[in-house]
Amino acid sequence: MHSADSPAPVDYSRVFTSAIDRLHAEGRYRVFIDILRNKGMFPNARCFAGHNGPKPITVWCSNDYLAMGQHPKVIAAMEEALHDVGAGSGGTRNIGGNTHYHVDLEGELADLHGKDGALLFTSGYVSNEATLATLGKILPGCLIYSDELNHASMIAGIRNSGCEKRVFRHNDLAHLEELLAADDPSVPKLIAFESVYSMDADIAPIAEICDLADKYNALTYLDEVHAVGMYGPRGGGISDREGLADRLTIIEGTLGKAFGVMGGYIAADQMIIDVIRSYAPGFIFTTSLSPVLVAGALASVRHLKGSSEERDGQQAAAAKLKVMMAEAGLPVMPSTTHIVPLMVGDPVKAKKISDILLAEYGVYVQPINYPTVPRGTERLRFTPGPAHDEAMMRELVDALVEIWGRLELRRAA
Amino acid sequence: MHSADSPAPVDYSRVFTSAIDRLHAEGRYRVFIDILRNKGMFPNARCFAGHNGPKPITVWCSNDYLAMGQHPKVIAAMEEALHDVGAGSGGTRNIGGNTHYHVDLEGELADLHGKDGALLFTSGYVSNEATLATLGKILPGCLIYSDELNHASMIAGIRNSGCEKRVFRHNDLAHLEELLAADDPSVPKLIAFESVYSMDADIAPIAEICDLADKYNALTYLDEVHAVGMYGPRGGGISDREGLADRLTIIEGTLGKAFGVMGGYIAADQMIIDVIRSYAPGFIFTTSLSPVLVAGALASVRHLKGSSEERDGQQAAAAKLKVMMAEAGLPVMPSTTHIVPLMVGDPVKAKKISDILLAEYGVYVQPINYPTVPRGTERLRFTPGPAHDEAMMRELVDALVEIWGRLELRRAA
Repeated sequence: MHSADSPAPVDYSRVFTSAIDRLHAEGRYRVFIDILRNKGMFPNARCFAGHNGPKPITVWCSNDYLAMGQHPKVIAAMEEALHDVGAGSGGTRNIGGNTHYHVDLEGELADLHGKDGALLFTSGYVSNEATLATLGKILPGCLIYSDELNHASMIAGIRNSGCEKRVFRHNDLAHLEELLAADDPSVPKLIAFESVYSMDADIAPIAEICDLADKYNALTYLDEVHAVGMYGPRGGGISDREGLADRLTIIEGTLGKAFGVMGGYIAADQMIIDVIRSYAPGFIFTTSLSPVLVAGALASVRHLKGSSEERDGQQAAAAKLKVMMAEAGLPVMPSTTHIVPLMVGDPVKAKKISDILLAEYGVYVQPINYPTVPRGTERLRFTPGPAHDEAMMRELVDALVEIWGRLELRRAA
Repeated sequence: MHSADSPAPVDYSRVFTSAIDRLHAEGRYRVFIDILRNKGMFPNARCFAGHNGPKPITVWCSNDYLAMGQHPKVIAAMEEALHDVGAGSGGTRNIGGNTHYHVDLEGELADLHGKDGALLFTSGYVSNEATLATLGKILPGCLIYSDELNHASMIAGIRNSGCEKRVFRHNDLAHLEELLAADDPSVPKLIAFESVYSMDADIAPIAEICDLADKYNALTYLDEVHAVGMYGPRGGGISDREGLADRLTIIEGTLGKAFGVMGGYIAADQMIIDVIRSYAPGFIFTTSLSPVLVAGALASVRHLKGSSEERDGQQAAAAKLKVMMAEAGLPVMPSTTHIVPLMVGDPVKAKKISDILLAEYGVYVQPINYPTVPRGTERLRFTPGPAHDEAMMRELVDALVEIWGRLELRRAA
């Protein structure tokens, strides 16, 4: 009870409820689909929730792009580590959690990117956040130039660095140069960008951005999470494919997408690795990756260094699906990558299509809504891989055509 | 080349080098010990680097407090998941990465803490950072009251929330109330604290802090990472032991310490879980925990709900070691927990003791230096568990007594 002249106490429930109500009102409240993938039979999976018992589905939106999460070498390496050293690492990298697997994998990743050193993080998100925030704090007065479509984890790192940020229009070299030229030449600068933009499926002009970095004495930070394992003769990403790794200051990657396991990393000069290792709270104060994961990632990275079969299979599947969708008149977005986005432009319709696909066709593709993409550009995003065959694609495209008709959606021009 | 009248370009190498030089000058440059633990024989491990081949050591500083990382049930569950569903989850929780294991473990953790719901994160660090930052943003004008010894991840979350922070003296109820009473009663408030403080080995007055929260209409956030699995009849932490779980708004825990695997979580009312799930970038934009880890954690949580043998063994080992150290005149710090800290008070000496223990005695305990503890309070921190026997303790104490004499270190008063 509060007296009549005192202000009403905070009603916390009301604040929380209204935060959730906003999501429902915008049609972007997220319901997680409850699944188990079937090892040995990816992209097949079992779907729980809302059905009588598990129902078989085909997964079309996994970021285990090359199905390495079921590769026999990866599974065997994880099983061996599990029995040799146990489940978790038991500590931070500094306090008991630095295993020989971590040391080996960092060596392997440094080699993959032609760098002196590498550093593991618990996720790609943490690697971006921790590295960018720490770099910005170490370099007094640093200005950070950030592509407008950079991932949320880079945006978080830049914000947490406390640095001034200059956002350049997506992949727009003229705009980037305009911003660089307008700033004090004697101030530290960092250009942060991605190679493959996962939601738009396009690729940055890396060489030209490095030219600008040279011209304006800026460091470069390249996020290759949607490219490592998948591009370049050894799977080092777009910078590997284009022979540009040595021009980049820091290359960041993930172990949770094409490498099929979990975790993130950066590769760079030893001095920079040492600075991040020594100063980044998100690296220092956290239990290190389980050695079981590290062993699996090590096997995956090593395999994809020597094998292009998975990469070739993925590229062929993506090319095939794009053609089939275009021929069917579906509004497939331009893509120079392995990602096949289909524009819907409305969060409610995107969810509706996804719901019908799952309930009626056993096809699982997640609608991509704000804040993952800008409002009004909601889409479906397909990630065909080497394990998706033509029959699966035919089923998918036929289903989409039927739903497009049923919901009277816009076709390709 | 720059012309004489333009400023010198930034010398990035010099900035990075001087950042590392500062660490060397303060004696707190960190060298990671390269080890592999021997499953089935914890706390034994192999140490690499600096020796001719792997050398056997005894680990005294693991946060795998109950040796659950080698428990047969945990290993079996992980092996089964590895073969059933593969290595990684392949996506964020929203996009393909929500497995049935995740759903089950969240149910199990909610039950452990007597809450409606729970939410998994990739680490305890991320759970603290993401939850506190998001809560602060959702509650307009929120003030956050933070114990001065709170973990770096809570500090990061509070800073990233953008909220005003009030730091209260460690476990000081009078100071906390003084701060609460001085603030506007109509403003949202959150008290963030830990149950077991890992470096000081003491415990917060949870009931009294909840009383203050009630009196001043504040939410409470309790970090139980050094308590879950180890305290309470079901391993729900200090709040379980003291029957206080229902008085706390949010309880945060880890799967990477006593549960022996990797990952973090919060438990709370469903509405709060839904808000964090829907708004926290550190939850939304990251690949979910590998199902292999989740399966292991599920087995571990379930086992420790029903078995107190590991908890009892740990408490007995900690009590024994404290007595033995005190009897030997070593400056063991007061501890009401399973953690046994030995004060050194100097970063160079702390490292020296640790180096001698490893090189001459095959004993591994990491020196704890700034920024993990305040400067001048550098220490060694021992974590005896159910697998440390009396012979190991005798060896350890004898070694410490010899080194204390050799280095002419201060004995207990």
